[in-house]
Amino acid sequence: MPIPPPALSALTEIFGDRLSLRAADRDHHAGSETFHHAPPPDAVAWPLTTEEVSRALSVCNEHRVPVIGWGTGTSLEGHALATHGGLVIDLSRMDRVIEVRPGDMQVTVQPGVTREALNTELRATGLFFPVDPGANASLGGMAATRASGTTAVRYGTMRDNVLALEVVLADGRVIRTGTRAAKSSAGYDLTALMVGSEGTLGIITELTLRLHGQPEQVAAAVCAFPTLESAVECVTATIQSGIPMARIEFVDALSIRAVNAYAHRSYPETPHLFVEFNGSAESVRADAEAFGDLARECGGTGFDWADTPEERAALWRMRHQAYPACLALRAGAKGVVTDVCVPMSHLAGAVAAASADIAAEGMTGPILGHVGDGNFHSLLLVDPGDADQLARAKGIARRMAERALAVRGTISGEHGIGIGKRPLMAAEHGDGWAVMGTIKAALDPNNILNPGKLVPDRN
Amino acid sequence: MPIPPPALSALTEIFGDRLSLRAADRDHHAGSETFHHAPPPDAVAWPLTTEEVSRALSVCNEHRVPVIGWGTGTSLEGHALATHGGLVIDLSRMDRVIEVRPGDMQVTVQPGVTREALNTELRATGLFFPVDPGANASLGGMAATRASGTTAVRYGTMRDNVLALEVVLADGRVIRTGTRAAKSSAGYDLTALMVGSEGTLGIITELTLRLHGQPEQVAAAVCAFPTLESAVECVTATIQSGIPMARIEFVDALSIRAVNAYAHRSYPETPHLFVEFNGSAESVRADAEAFGDLARECGGTGFDWADTPEERAALWRMRHQAYPACLALRAGAKGVVTDVCVPMSHLAGAVAAASADIAAEGMTGPILGHVGDGNFHSLLLVDPGDADQLARAKGIARRMAERALAVRGTISGEHGIGIGKRPLMAAEHGDGWAVMGTIKAALDPNNILNPGKLVPDRN
Repeated sequence: MPIPPPALSALTEIFGDRLSLRAADRDHHAGSETFHHAPPPDAVAWPLTTEEVSRALSVCNEHRVPVIGWGTGTSLEGHALATHGGLVIDLSRMDRVIEVRPGDMQVTVQPGVTREALNTELRATGLFFPVDPGANASLGGMAATRASGTTAVRYGTMRDNVLALEVVLADGRVIRTGTRAAKSSAGYDLTALMVGSEGTLGIITELTLRLHGQPEQVAAAVCAFPTLESAVECVTATIQSGIPMARIEFVDALSIRAVNAYAHRSYPETPHLFVEFNGSAESVRADAEAFGDLARECGGTGFDWADTPEERAALWRMRHQAYPACLALRAGAKGVVTDVCVPMSHLAGAVAAASADIAAEGMTGPILGHVGDGNFHSLLLVDPGDADQLARAKGIARRMAERALAVRGTISGEHGIGIGKRPLMAAEHGDGWAVMGTIKAALDPNNILNPGKLVPDRN
Repeated sequence: MPIPPPALSALTEIFGDRLSLRAADRDHHAGSETFHHAPPPDAVAWPLTTEEVSRALSVCNEHRVPVIGWGTGTSLEGHALATHGGLVIDLSRMDRVIEVRPGDMQVTVQPGVTREALNTELRATGLFFPVDPGANASLGGMAATRASGTTAVRYGTMRDNVLALEVVLADGRVIRTGTRAAKSSAGYDLTALMVGSEGTLGIITELTLRLHGQPEQVAAAVCAFPTLESAVECVTATIQSGIPMARIEFVDALSIRAVNAYAHRSYPETPHLFVEFNGSAESVRADAEAFGDLARECGGTGFDWADTPEERAALWRMRHQAYPACLALRAGAKGVVTDVCVPMSHLAGAVAAASADIAAEGMTGPILGHVGDGNFHSLLLVDPGDADQLARAKGIARRMAERALAVRGTISGEHGIGIGKRPLMAAEHGDGWAVMGTIKAALDPNNILNPGKLVPDRN
């Protein structure tokens, strides 16, 4: 159902030439980095202020027009696809860093600020924002999907680093959740409810984020292990010994082969851990030594330490290049990216089972992940147009999620639900999924906010 | 309205002689440690299983009987008072530690387990549960009020340490929120929604908690400062320098006078900081030295280090005794305890303003708090039956909260809302408070769960 003419003229009044019905603009907001697809939205608007978002939502609520928030379009489960048509609200022009408060170690930003832009802005303050999902996503989008990434083991996820939000509700009301205090017990945690709600409960128009001190010293290393099990054993031992890690990443033998080819390296083609320690010069040295001892006990060899900022940047660039590197394993292939998170005691078993399943299906699917959290991914390579391969990849992803649930893990560690993981929500949450639907229906009775995503279909 | 006879007979069928209508049992569940009062509930039940709670809620929902969860009765804002009559569900007999999973650093408990009982049970594992509100509260109650305390600066609050819950909803449905994975982005964060909901959205019947490694080394100290400002300056400097503290507590001159009298000490009657460092022997020594340097720069003197577990226990017992010690400043007095939390940059100003207000009113009100979070309390001493004093104490508490809001802090750092802070909710949350009411109405349409608390009255 296209946008009704009275709604369109009201939206034009709000946005002027920042409302577009052009095919190019609509198509640009229909794509996705993955195999998820949907027709383009009916229109795209680029608000500059909270008030514009509020007025737009009032109009859309009155006329039952679906509204989909858009950050940078880097989500992986089709979160921002306009499956029911409607208006995409592209927040990329609300990209101001509103206020840095070094004394409180906080910053207030508009939702279109990307994490890299924020950290560039913060460079001179001695502070930084640590959550790093790899992509240079917008902070509003990262909050909406409860993103995390390589540093969550030390600094937490968006759940832990969003202190307060300004949110426009379905009916255009603007609320402020949370405060600038470090903690609060004043009522329902609406901030936590909005973080991870994927645009189904409101549009985030402002975020107050926790910042952290730039560490005095950083040391990073990569280290080879003979087997998957020995690498995971090293992770578990490190965590239990209380050694504080800033990052600890697992990369399997196939990923290393891909990285070697892509980035012209010559690492041994066995499982590796990438680690990083932050702190004072003294504590980083002590932590690195303690980790080195544990790693060697688990069979780790060939430590390659990156001491300078340049070497470190190169090392983490290599880790983040694993995605294109793995895609390059098979010319023209697209990736189906899986994302489960399991209790630490089940991590080795879960990775081994995933690996065996991928092999049994004859697929190419390197495995890598943020193993300090029990979170890992496989990148299943699928030839475009090969429906059978795509079905088998989806089967592998589904079984991986089912195995995670069997050990009381989760179907999504950090990528969220969107449309991709929605069929698995009932299995993870049982009646809790219906509760999510009840909350959604209460706050968005006309179901205009990102309909068809995350919650059950309404009866 | 008393419990209707059909409901009473259905409840008797469920609980047998674990349902009581006796005045002594009802009165025992009508008291509170504060000046908040209400008539006793109509009945008290002691369930042993989730199924009993579920059946009881079905009955109460059908017959519109209010249901109030009860842990240890140590809340400070009248959370568990039966202001609308009804059934108190006392969870103290659901006190089993269900499963300790050292490999995952997690434990699953029933809600009636107290934090001290849990830590006794964990002693041999090398792990502990860090959240410490002072009182030996039940873990279910601590989750329901989003408790924190002295260790939050290092280990977080209940928000950060509850991974998963089993909750019985108003209609008797049992849901499981969260998983055993360290993080998840699978839908709305129902765990965070339930933590701090004060029994208004459901009754918690099981909790999965994060555990932490018992630190290899612990060092604690108390240190005197010439002024409030110099003590707070030391806190801010310590946090900004990134020195990891396990606890950092402010105690004002009047509290010290009270502790000296009560515990036969002879500390100088000036503001003090109590601090604790956890870690390896090496890191604790380095942290303590770095803190000592900062404290001396801020004018700190007279370090009294507690090195042995016994000395440390004595030191923290003294800090936790501040409450009875301060009450003992004035024979027969009752305390009105305030609880605000402000951004760090406003802490010194907020404490100074509170202190001036207390002096201007001619009240006795020592100030102390978990200043690493910006959270502080005053214990305003009120003679029983003195209505004027009580009104002035409430005025001081209200103005303290209003000043916290003026600097974008919160009206409750850790004690919650109950009935005491409810009149201030609109000022903190604006339309967000109405959103809380909408969620409550959607999940508890008959308003049986702890009615009259936390959310707005229903139209």
